[in-house]
Amino acid sequence: MNHYMKKSIQQYQAENKNKARLLIKCPDQPGIVAAVSDFLYRHDANIITSDQYTLDPDGGQFFMRVEFYCPQLLEKAEVLEEAFQSIGEKFAMEWQLLYVSQLKNMAIFVSNEPHCLMELLWEYQSGDLMAHIALVISNHETARETVESLGIPFYYIPANKDIRKQVEEKQLQLLNEHQVDVIVLARYMQILTSDFVKNYEHQIINIHHSFLPAFVGAKPYERAYKRGVKMIGATSHYVTNDLDEGPIIEQDIGRVDHRDNSAKMKKIGQAIERVVLSRAVKWHLEDRIIVHENKTIVF
Amino acid sequence: MNHYMKKSIQQYQAENKNKARLLIKCPDQPGIVAAVSDFLYRHDANIITSDQYTLDPDGGQFFMRVEFYCPQLLEKAEVLEEAFQSIGEKFAMEWQLLYVSQLKNMAIFVSNEPHCLMELLWEYQSGDLMAHIALVISNHETARETVESLGIPFYYIPANKDIRKQVEEKQLQLLNEHQVDVIVLARYMQILTSDFVKNYEHQIINIHHSFLPAFVGAKPYERAYKRGVKMIGATSHYVTNDLDEGPIIEQDIGRVDHRDNSAKMKKIGQAIERVVLSRAVKWHLEDRIIVHENKTIVF
Amino acid sequence: MNHYMKKSIQQYQAENKNKARLLIKCPDQPGIVAAVSDFLYRHDANIITSDQYTLDPDGGQFFMRVEFYCPQLLEKAEVLEEAFQSIGEKFAMEWQLLYVSQLKNMAIFVSNEPHCLMELLWEYQSGDLMAHIALVISNHETARETVESLGIPFYYIPANKDIRKQVEEKQLQLLNEHQVDVIVLARYMQILTSDFVKNYEHQIINIHHSFLPAFVGAKPYERAYKRGVKMIGATSHYVTNDLDEGPIIEQDIGRVDHRDNSAKMKKIGQAIERVVLSRAVKWHLEDRIIVHENKTIVF
Amino acid sequence: MNHYMKKSIQQYQAENKNKARLLIKCPDQPGIVAAVSDFLYRHDANIITSDQYTLDPDGGQFFMRVEFYCPQLLEKAEVLEEAFQSIGEKFAMEWQLLYVSQLKNMAIFVSNEPHCLMELLWEYQSGDLMAHIALVISNHETARETVESLGIPFYYIPANKDIRKQVEEKQLQLLNEHQVDVIVLARYMQILTSDFVKNYEHQIINIHHSFLPAFVGAKPYERAYKRGVKMIGATSHYVTNDLDEGPIIEQDIGRVDHRDNSAKMKKIGQAIERVVLSRAVKWHLEDRIIVHENKTIVF
Repeated sequence: MNHYMKKSIQQYQAENKNKARLLIKCPDQPGIVAAVSDFLYRHDANIITSDQYTLDPDGGQFFMRVEFYCPQLLEKAEVLEEAFQSIGEKFAMEWQLLYVSQLKNMAIFVSNEPHCLMELLWEYQSGDLMAHIALVISNHETARETVESLGIPFYYIPANKDIRKQVEEKQLQLLNEHQVDVIVLARYMQILTSDFVKNYEHQIINIHHSFLPAFVGAKPYERAYKRGVKMIGATSHYVTNDLDEGPIIEQDIGRVDHRDNSAKMKKIGQAIERVVLSRAVKWHLEDRIIVHENKTIVF
Repeated sequence: MNHYMKKSIQQYQAENKNKARLLIKCPDQPGIVAAVSDFLYRHDANIITSDQYTLDPDGGQFFMRVEFYCPQLLEKAEVLEEAFQSIGEKFAMEWQLLYVSQLKNMAIFVSNEPHCLMELLWEYQSGDLMAHIALVISNHETARETVESLGIPFYYIPANKDIRKQVEEKQLQLLNEHQVDVIVLARYMQILTSDFVKNYEHQIINIHHSFLPAFVGAKPYERAYKRGVKMIGATSHYVTNDLDEGPIIEQDIGRVDHRDNSAKMKKIGQAIERVVLSRAVKWHLEDRIIVHENKTIVF
Repeated sequence: MNHYMKKSIQQYQAENKNKARLLIKCPDQPGIVAAVSDFLYRHDANIITSDQYTLDPDGGQFFMRVEFYCPQLLEKAEVLEEAFQSIGEKFAMEWQLLYVSQLKNMAIFVSNEPHCLMELLWEYQSGDLMAHIALVISNHETARETVESLGIPFYYIPANKDIRKQVEEKQLQLLNEHQVDVIVLARYMQILTSDFVKNYEHQIINIHHSFLPAFVGAKPYERAYKRGVKMIGATSHYVTNDLDEGPIIEQDIGRVDHRDNSAKMKKIGQAIERVVLSRAVKWHLEDRIIVHENKTIVF
Repeated sequence: MNHYMKKSIQQYQAENKNKARLLIKCPDQPGIVAAVSDFLYRHDANIITSDQYTLDPDGGQFFMRVEFYCPQLLEKAEVLEEAFQSIGEKFAMEWQLLYVSQLKNMAIFVSNEPHCLMELLWEYQSGDLMAHIALVISNHETARETVESLGIPFYYIPANKDIRKQVEEKQLQLLNEHQVDVIVLARYMQILTSDFVKNYEHQIINIHHSFLPAFVGAKPYERAYKRGVKMIGATSHYVTNDLDEGPIIEQDIGRVDHRDNSAKMKKIGQAIERVVLSRAVKWHLEDRIIVHENKTIVF
């Protein structure tokens, strides 16, 4: 990590040391917001932003994200969490209290095409992607120089479907060593096993180079060209055991026309992939996403 | 009004008879959300959606919009409003309690180009624009047949800058008779006097056919063509005494290129105007907009 | 047809009586453009716009669209067509010479949802959709009043899959009587048989309410909601024997989020459908589209 | 320049050694296209793409861009140019014959914000921006390391309005030494004198951080925030003597809302600036742009 970046992260942590986020998911019933806001008020916290959503017809599920400011937050963290316990129980909540200054540890997986990795590193250097990039793992050597020049450990682990088990063992060991919270598949062209995925439920973010559910699977640009579509897209989603079927976080598209062959589509698509993945990763880092069944609520 | 529409409005009112919206603007301080949500909880109201925003650096202004469901709402309206009085005073709030089933009375002003009027009438007929369109006023006869075929009163009031005062007197009288709450200038090409405007502060919505603040004033498409822009736009805003300077509600744009002369730009622009005005009017009808200084908060 | 519209069509035809379009498709080889432009020059024609495209890797197919002005065009039409015959043969062209003032006869098919029909009628009334709308055929009575008020014949033909053959016989008879050139399926919810389709190859334009190839078939908004997509779309394409698989003419999309259920998605989608179908129909009427294999070249 | 890039440029030049582009601007009259296409045919050239445009009402100006393939192009270059001379004279053309394999020499000027420079360098490294980046000139040291790591000469020339003349003398000397064809102002925050500009007419590309003509001049994001716009934009244009008034090449926009203060707008805007400048520079390098009066035709 270079000096500029270190300063930026330290500055960010200092500025946000009294900020936290509360994520809530529970059956809907009267009084939830009153209970939460009263709790915050009694603990001298001031709400910065608050979003909520009730999923009506399908059973009255309630979702909430509150970002608040609380003097001496980190000193009071334990007290807050303990005190919130009873509210959580009363309303049968799944809840998380997340401290803005505690950055997530991120691993990036990449194969041969570096554009998505490059975008993330760029955002990281600009101070716009607030995480600790703990390591980059690749089945190609392509990105080593760029990654290491930023002081980020780079691990080359050759991979193919015949040695998947050994590869994933090595990867999991590295992820454990680096205490990784979130894995970004920045165009990593290997399929992960369900054994691997279950360790990081809703913590693995993939970018698929099509507008899902169109062109699930391999070679989407070639297939988009063959079908003669007039727009191509990209989709960022959490990884589940079903290929390209996990909860969608973000999508975007770009125009193509008859002059664009699949190589040109790929170029146009790469610019979309960069933007879509970058948005999805930032929303995850900002604790904006709640997964419910196979969908995301993005606050 | 045709039968289909009457049914749609009645159905909407029946479905929403227990829904209300609370709009709040006050100096920021701890405890506002707790007080509001506690108030609603104590009156058996269940929050449907809630949005808030704090304007930080410029003095800590707090804004909130809550949509809630409350059994027997209309019977309890007076009690609710009285009870909220003390909260309003405590926090020095400007606040409004609005009942979803009480539709706003709308007047539409139009000149010779009917596309924006047509879009609004279409949305109205489809049950997507929930207001009582009380009357249409025009300085041309063009739209009479279409408007009257929907059972909406149409008033032809010739206008020019020399008879502005008399014209506005007639208009104000009609607006009073019809108890109009909101005026939509759907490409009405006459300037309103400040005497007129002060009667309807933040209740007159205009569509300007440029991406403001570019091309304030007359003939924006001609000027856009002359400047050689690659995109044109439209802006919907509340009318104030400063021409095209009121709080912006919504904007959108479309691409043009060197082949598009000002006539073609106008055609492209009209499609944008329709969409932008329609969005702004709906947001106003749904009580999503709070005006602060010369800007809008759109929840 | 009302007076305003008649005038607009007559005016259009008068203004364009000396304009024609030449559409060409042939194997690529040197000298095509030189031959065509020399031909036009020798016949006193001046090129207004000219577009060409060579499909390279897949066999060197050449496509061209020229719009030109030629004094006394209609008097010279026969001579021109005969003279171009030898160029066409020399380069093994499929070619068409189309006269801008000779409007196409259009039939619109619609079922219960009128929004796409309404958009087309609107454009027609505004003088922006230059065709003769010869008739509207529907399996519902919903749109009769609107259609007939514009002086357009409306035919109610109840339809379901059990009587498909009889229904299509009636439809074909009407289409023949009205000498229809192009059929627009403006949300017509019946499947056409291959016997019907073969009569109008690349002359039937459909709007499908999804971003194809995602959500081929029934209930795309419901399925889009279920999948949790963040954007929905619409696709206009020529009808072939394979459901929703014909050459795509135009697509567009709109953003949705977790708050939008399938009913809301449908509303958002309808606005996209209107725009996409309207663009595709206009491009067809302006002879901008050449079909090659299962794709369109849109000049 | 690293090895990968050298290979990419050499490969590009090899693949395109027989490709050229002809740019034409002249008064409209019959026979131009016939003459040009006949010329190419007689010299064994095959047209790859051809675009033309006639500016009708304002005096019948004709514009054309032809990209063609011609075996032994570079050997025949002199012959071609001489032979075209008489056609050019006959039709009073301004014309240019440009060889695709002869890359333009580019200088990039940058101040303290590196995002636009970074985007150009990225595209350059990816082989998507086909030019020789001959040098980078900056009035800050910020970008030195990045630029020099790619083997591109970096010149630090401190600048302010009091020493403008000396600064520009140094800059011009460097530009001459490096035989620069095109200058990209990638957020260079110094005003260029008319003496400087006249040396590079329509060869200096600037990025302005607003949707021109809105917010001409300094601090556009601050002013956009103050005005309460709902979209911000960026504009790339050729530099003339009138600040921010030169011919517009490309524009794009992004959505903002009341939550976005001017710092956030700046972040959103930087992503737009990157894309808009990058597109404009590529179009210039591909000889797609013809300037006419104060506008661009972009083919």
